[in-house]
Amino acid sequence: MTDLAHVVALNAGSSSVKFGLFDVSGAAARGLAEGQVEMAGTRRHLVVRGPKGLLADTSWESDTVFHDDAIACLLAWIKAECDDFAPLGIGHRVVHGGIDFAAPVMCDDDVIARLQSLVHLAPLHQPANLAAIAAARREWPHVPQIACFDTAFHRGHEFAQDAYALPRDYYAAGVRRYGFHGISYEYLLRRLGRIAPDIARGRIIMAHLGNGASLCALRDGRSVATTMGFSTLDGLIMGTRCGQIDPGVLLWLMQEKQMPAEEISDLLYRRSGLRGLSGISHDMRTLEASPDPAARDAIASFAARIRHEIAGLATTIGGIDAIVFSGGIGANAARIRAELLDGMAWLGIALDAEVNIRATGGVEALISPSGAQPRIYVLPTDEEAMIATHVTAMLAPGSHRA
Amino acid sequence: MTDLAHVVALNAGSSSVKFGLFDVSGAAARGLAEGQVEMAGTRRHLVVRGPKGLLADTSWESDTVFHDDAIACLLAWIKAECDDFAPLGIGHRVVHGGIDFAAPVMCDDDVIARLQSLVHLAPLHQPANLAAIAAARREWPHVPQIACFDTAFHRGHEFAQDAYALPRDYYAAGVRRYGFHGISYEYLLRRLGRIAPDIARGRIIMAHLGNGASLCALRDGRSVATTMGFSTLDGLIMGTRCGQIDPGVLLWLMQEKQMPAEEISDLLYRRSGLRGLSGISHDMRTLEASPDPAARDAIASFAARIRHEIAGLATTIGGIDAIVFSGGIGANAARIRAELLDGMAWLGIALDAEVNIRATGGVEALISPSGAQPRIYVLPTDEEAMIATHVTAMLAPGSHRA
Repeated sequence: MTDLAHVVALNAGSSSVKFGLFDVSGAAARGLAEGQVEMAGTRRHLVVRGPKGLLADTSWESDTVFHDDAIACLLAWIKAECDDFAPLGIGHRVVHGGIDFAAPVMCDDDVIARLQSLVHLAPLHQPANLAAIAAARREWPHVPQIACFDTAFHRGHEFAQDAYALPRDYYAAGVRRYGFHGISYEYLLRRLGRIAPDIARGRIIMAHLGNGASLCALRDGRSVATTMGFSTLDGLIMGTRCGQIDPGVLLWLMQEKQMPAEEISDLLYRRSGLRGLSGISHDMRTLEASPDPAARDAIASFAARIRHEIAGLATTIGGIDAIVFSGGIGANAARIRAELLDGMAWLGIALDAEVNIRATGGVEALISPSGAQPRIYVLPTDEEAMIATHVTAMLAPGSHRA
Repeated sequence: MTDLAHVVALNAGSSSVKFGLFDVSGAAARGLAEGQVEMAGTRRHLVVRGPKGLLADTSWESDTVFHDDAIACLLAWIKAECDDFAPLGIGHRVVHGGIDFAAPVMCDDDVIARLQSLVHLAPLHQPANLAAIAAARREWPHVPQIACFDTAFHRGHEFAQDAYALPRDYYAAGVRRYGFHGISYEYLLRRLGRIAPDIARGRIIMAHLGNGASLCALRDGRSVATTMGFSTLDGLIMGTRCGQIDPGVLLWLMQEKQMPAEEISDLLYRRSGLRGLSGISHDMRTLEASPDPAARDAIASFAARIRHEIAGLATTIGGIDAIVFSGGIGANAARIRAELLDGMAWLGIALDAEVNIRATGGVEALISPSGAQPRIYVLPTDEEAMIATHVTAMLAPGSHRA
């Protein structure tokens, strides 16, 4: 009989904590349950799904600190529902690992202090990540807490891909391209390595297209360049975020419109992107279904920006052997995939229209015609499974990291 | 005997007024003299060069308004030195024509009021342009004054190339990609049309690489997309300007560093770019000659950004038939051209190394190997000649614009 071993993967935002519960006693992490605790004022809402359907859906009122509350509630649910819960470790998605953390790390007091010092680089996300780590340490004081970073996968880029054209003391002070979505890219690279190992070592553009969105160029199994930079605002057009924008626009808002920094931040993070362009919704499904020309404009802009960046990033890896689509939009919106690759035949890019249209709802698929180069894949991502894999690897007997 | 007809092209900055004097009595504008008046405090300095050498080099002290002083001094020099001066018109380079001016325009009171209303879009440049127009009208009250716009050539882009992913009322309020260097691109397109008419109607990437720098994608003789946007900060790395940068960096400077808007503006316009990255100089010639690794880093970053944008812009025109290099760097720095095109063979891009290295100092050249696709050209630009051509066309008998 295999010893039971569980891993909990936590992904904490400011008003939600998502989690995955995995059995890692076998060769690969096996998902037992996934869900989230959400906060709206004093209202708390827990939803848990298992492989066979809904396992919990309850609401309650609370005025305790949200992350403490959420972690305690998750623990209570797991203990009540999961027989013989044997927590091997808790894995935390942490948005920012700065320039030092290029791999997952065990959270001791020193590491937590270093993560705290990075709050100024991700003021909207890092505090929630740290609050979840603190709450999990209190609830599970004897269980290892392991931080996995969205930035780690992108460390080791060349200077020209990492640096903005600012005075060099800004680079030294941490103003550089960190890149994000690294846990997702690492998962996708491993999946591609199983499906097509030769391709996975080649020149790949990965497109993580969800409410947040970025592209990553990989070669020889490493990230070479990515579209998100210092913050999660840069690069592609997102659900509510502006993506790339002329810095002169911000100067104009400050100097000509006297707009305070907090208002500019709210504009660029929450009122821009697909929502701003369309005036309708941040949600691609709503825009696809809308007859409004503004919805078409928003989709066309989203697609044009991705086309531009696919070709631009390809210059960092010398061409394209494969493109991988993932994320809520990338893995599901077949018509958007077709639209954004339209007109790229000059790079050899072609889709099998029928295969593409069926590649939705969580399936893995090769959607380029047989023999075409580059190959184009749809691969759903699973960041929680990647975190569980990292936790297992770090805590395995004989691991040099444990 | 042909009637004498002269055109003066003026290019006014905040502390200099450049000019070109042309004889337009023949079929093509013929340059008679070019030069500039510069200001440093109360010091004024006039330099004029003719086809055969230096024509004037004098300094003096003055405390009158600079642009009035400069225009008066130019007029005095022209009247004294140019026999039978017969001014047909004065052409002005104006940085910003907003969304309305898609072609040169005669400056009457109404036009000047509309140009005044665009000052908030180009607060560093437009006031100097308007001061020069006002001074020229006072000095030459009976001579037509014609404004030629850096933005005009880029009007008519698709919405997806024009709009930032902001709420649509920003687009309506003028926050959009205007693009600049349009007078230069128009000149280069005309030159290419003479040299290779079929290519000039194809898919072209033009690179205007000087102290300011941008790329333009053209198809069917029209601008389709360009790297500069709302302001002259966006896009490529420039001598002292940052180019593309994550808007999150500006939020960080405001919110975490409490940096005032004026200081951010000074940082991004004057202390960034090649100067900031190298810590040595904004001047590419100095960086090329420097053994300092920081100079190499700055050049590598400059080149990587251009490679990225060449390929990115190519997605807007469906491939590349020709690349045209111009501007102080583009027309002269042969090693920089070679470096930035290195590793782009996957797009068919190749250089004839020997022809490339000789294509400096103002020559026009095809620098790709015979038969290669895309063709790569070096073409020096001449914005003053383009302005003179516009003035002549507008004032020609029978011109529908005159």
